[in-house]
Amino acid sequence: MSSEKLKIAVLGGTGNIGEGMVLRLALQNLMAEGVKNEVIIGSRSKEAANEAAKKAISELENCGFDTSKITITGNSNHEAAQAAEVIILTIRFGHVLPLLHEIREALEDKILITPVVPMEKEGDLFVYEPPEEGSAALAIQKNVPASTKVVAAFHNIPARKLRDIVKCKSVYHALVCSDDAEAKKLVIKLTDHMGCMKPLDGGPLKQANTMESLTPLLINLAKLNGFKDLGINFS
Amino acid sequence: MSSEKLKIAVLGGTGNIGEGMVLRLALQNLMAEGVKNEVIIGSRSKEAANEAAKKAISELENCGFDTSKITITGNSNHEAAQAAEVIILTIRFGHVLPLLHEIREALEDKILITPVVPMEKEGDLFVYEPPEEGSAALAIQKNVPASTKVVAAFHNIPARKLRDIVKCKSVYHALVCSDDAEAKKLVIKLTDHMGCMKPLDGGPLKQANTMESLTPLLINLAKLNGFKDLGINFS
Repeated sequence: MSSEKLKIAVLGGTGNIGEGMVLRLALQNLMAEGVKNEVIIGSRSKEAANEAAKKAISELENCGFDTSKITITGNSNHEAAQAAEVIILTIRFGHVLPLLHEIREALEDKILITPVVPMEKEGDLFVYEPPEEGSAALAIQKNVPASTKVVAAFHNIPARKLRDIVKCKSVYHALVCSDDAEAKKLVIKLTDHMGCMKPLDGGPLKQANTMESLTPLLINLAKLNGFKDLGINFS
Repeated sequence: MSSEKLKIAVLGGTGNIGEGMVLRLALQNLMAEGVKNEVIIGSRSKEAANEAAKKAISELENCGFDTSKITITGNSNHEAAQAAEVIILTIRFGHVLPLLHEIREALEDKILITPVVPMEKEGDLFVYEPPEEGSAALAIQKNVPASTKVVAAFHNIPARKLRDIVKCKSVYHALVCSDDAEAKKLVIKLTDHMGCMKPLDGGPLKQANTMESLTPLLINLAKLNGFKDLGINFS
């Protein structure tokens, strides 16, 4: 158990996956001994990020949680990244590379987590469309400083279940891959405290393409077989 | 319920996945009402196939099953394919295209099931290495007559669990994809009677690449996280 404060920026934290991630990361301060996460929502607009932070805190209060030990603030994507040790990119692949270019110097020596999935709709179904590097994770690695530790994780967790901090009792496997052993270890620990995820070591970053391709698979299987919010378990 | 006899050739039926498939397909005659599967093991050597068929029957007898309603025979790959309505390719990707070329005329109008996964070992882990068509399934479709109905299925079932007809109580999701609705329906029905699989519609054959890539993922996750014989469940 460490009692260090960990500053985590959730860029795109006002979006679908981002909202659930923010709530779950903040709640770890109440759920797991010694955890002191400080969550910073990043957004293109500082005002929107601030609004989202206030909304998240009041939602936790309304659910009956003691928010005196919880820190959620909002800022611009650049300021949020600058302040954080861990940065989570909960934004669409199409916006990722321009953003990384814009905040490049804020990424030096940081852990950068990508749950990003490049996919396209084709008829009723989704198709995984990785960039020429082989995966979003590898394209991201190519576009950040050499000192940035890229970790791919959280692609396959149904957003609605992640968001549902009170009622969701389901636990899904979450695959974590990286070429940096220490960074992977930290993300596995974060994941383990998330309440709805059981982390598994997914190997090196080269394996991220399979993890990314599971997201369109899950959406397609739900659509084709009449399910909702599918997650994945290995047994 | 149909009382028609369905002749199923398991090419490579003397191998790892093939053995379990043969036993499970034959056992359906006892387990599911109206099913009358006739299983033909195909192999490069007719003698080896015959031996494997005898061994399978005697294994079922030793497990206490009434084999009077069970038909398992052996033949050359070509003769087995010729006699069957459904052909399952339980052989390595490297051997598939030459074999398809050799037995091409026996494939006309047949249902051809591919659980084939092209993968390579890289260090301790496996990497999915699809051919330029995008998947083994699409490469196979390109190399068979236009009248052959290609169905991709059974990639992600742990061989040892499939083989363990008595003790294995685990049930895994099995993804089935095809561009032919009728053929997909038949394979989903076959899968549903397998005892260790719950079939899911995986969509068109174009989606087979994701299903194929799950096999190296499962092997890697088992290796990296200290598990054995991992299968997959969606929930």
